[in-house]
Amino acid sequence: MSVLVVGSIAYDTVETPYGNADDSLGGSALYFSAAASLFCPVNVVGVVGSDFDASKISFLKKRGVNLDGLYVESGSTFRWGGRYHKDLNKRDTLFTYLNVFESFQPKIPVQYRNADYVFLANIDPTLQLQVLEQIKKPKLVVLDTMNFWISGKRAMLDEVVKHCDILILNDEEARELSDEQNLITAIKKVSSIGKPKTLIVKKGEHGAVLYHKGAFFFVPAYPLDKVIDPTGAGDSFAGGFLGYIAKTGNLRLGTLKKALVYGSAVASFNVEDFSFDKLKALTNEALDERFNEFKALTRF
Amino acid sequence: MSVLVVGSIAYDTVETPYGNADDSLGGSALYFSAAASLFCPVNVVGVVGSDFDASKISFLKKRGVNLDGLYVESGSTFRWGGRYHKDLNKRDTLFTYLNVFESFQPKIPVQYRNADYVFLANIDPTLQLQVLEQIKKPKLVVLDTMNFWISGKRAMLDEVVKHCDILILNDEEARELSDEQNLITAIKKVSSIGKPKTLIVKKGEHGAVLYHKGAFFFVPAYPLDKVIDPTGAGDSFAGGFLGYIAKTGNLRLGTLKKALVYGSAVASFNVEDFSFDKLKALTNEALDERFNEFKALTRF
Repeated sequence: MSVLVVGSIAYDTVETPYGNADDSLGGSALYFSAAASLFCPVNVVGVVGSDFDASKISFLKKRGVNLDGLYVESGSTFRWGGRYHKDLNKRDTLFTYLNVFESFQPKIPVQYRNADYVFLANIDPTLQLQVLEQIKKPKLVVLDTMNFWISGKRAMLDEVVKHCDILILNDEEARELSDEQNLITAIKKVSSIGKPKTLIVKKGEHGAVLYHKGAFFFVPAYPLDKVIDPTGAGDSFAGGFLGYIAKTGNLRLGTLKKALVYGSAVASFNVEDFSFDKLKALTNEALDERFNEFKALTRF
Repeated sequence: MSVLVVGSIAYDTVETPYGNADDSLGGSALYFSAAASLFCPVNVVGVVGSDFDASKISFLKKRGVNLDGLYVESGSTFRWGGRYHKDLNKRDTLFTYLNVFESFQPKIPVQYRNADYVFLANIDPTLQLQVLEQIKKPKLVVLDTMNFWISGKRAMLDEVVKHCDILILNDEEARELSDEQNLITAIKKVSSIGKPKTLIVKKGEHGAVLYHKGAFFFVPAYPLDKVIDPTGAGDSFAGGFLGYIAKTGNLRLGTLKKALVYGSAVASFNVEDFSFDKLKALTNEALDERFNEFKALTRF
């Protein structure tokens, strides 16, 4: 089973307490793909500028990522610059140049329209809805968003949520979306908006929570001494999560739980280095080993 | 096997977003005892004023808490007043009247001095050391402390840690004690101070972490919609933790993990109501049921 992802492709300039990376490969669609492709074929839809160096993503092609939906427009590729603080949950955006991404109208190639598994990465909810209108009958739609759309395009976002099965948020977004401080209450309240079957809340260094038909499941973050660069953690998490589900082909609670652990495991590798420096060479053997380590971290 | 606890006995005045309790029973020694007595006999050492109403703690006696070490001094019982915010991790201390607790010199009754399991609740490290000097050959000493002593009596605190096996902190205290923002690095660094065998870090709504001989173990907080009153959460957690260990009688990693879950389970009941309103009537059946719920919350 393959997965379709629609999201950003970017050049990121990142400063963290451990160093910096200039104009390095980034973007939600690519982080998702690098992770999901460890489990199943991935079809990407996105846009880059004429300055994009396609050779940089050859590692994705080798892993079964299909880039037929990667449109090249005249102009520059989306660029984002950010600085992370010692408390890695806090970051400043230094600049955002949308460039060709500003006029992005996702057109799903005909051969992708039968997609069973769809990941709508964090883009304008209006575009996310346009994507869904082009997909025939998806088995599972997973949605990511951010506070910018929660406060700025709430009505449209609520409309998109109605068509999604799984909503992925971080803890702050869940609190904002529900206007509740208690995260458990926030999760229950958010799950009544548009009624997604499943809600996932990412809590950074505190791990992640799955809420599915009234049941909670918690996974800790893998204990890392050094988080070198948190960029892409959420998207690689989503990639590991949905990739595992697509590979498994069912939506049972047991599958969702394992998927959450695989998502956490991939994300933990991703943050161990800048850009794709870690995910690029990640093997399924190393990933499975870390997946098993999570058992020792949680089982009693 | 019995447990010895030395700590405070207080009347608390608490305001939370859900209501308030005036001059209600509190104090680290009592919260610890109420929890630990679900597993084994508990011996308490502490001080109260002549205004203390002993009938209020008869529920503890019925559960096997021995109060021979409860000294009654002329004067008033220790009083603390606090206000919790919507974000329950933040609280303001409204007043602290040490009263008879100000001149507390813990004298361990002769019949307690063979104690195998000792909990040094959060009191002045100088007093904690005095307690240890009176205990013959404890099998396990568990230490709690707070930022006030970390910043104010660091040298003495380090000295106490040297004589302890398990150190319990919250995440902020671990960061302060280690001067590290990354909690994993902080934990490793703290565990090299005085070399306690085991370190436990409480993370409030994010659960708790155990670090033992290089291995991590994580338990989430039980998902509660309403945390009515967080007072005593840490001490009831410690009581459940050490009570289970004392009952089990060994210090294997598997025992420590289960103890961490029992501590989390008791604490989750405690915060469901003010003062001892929940712990008072808590049964082992209800506790075991919640313990088992933690399996569903974490197992994959």
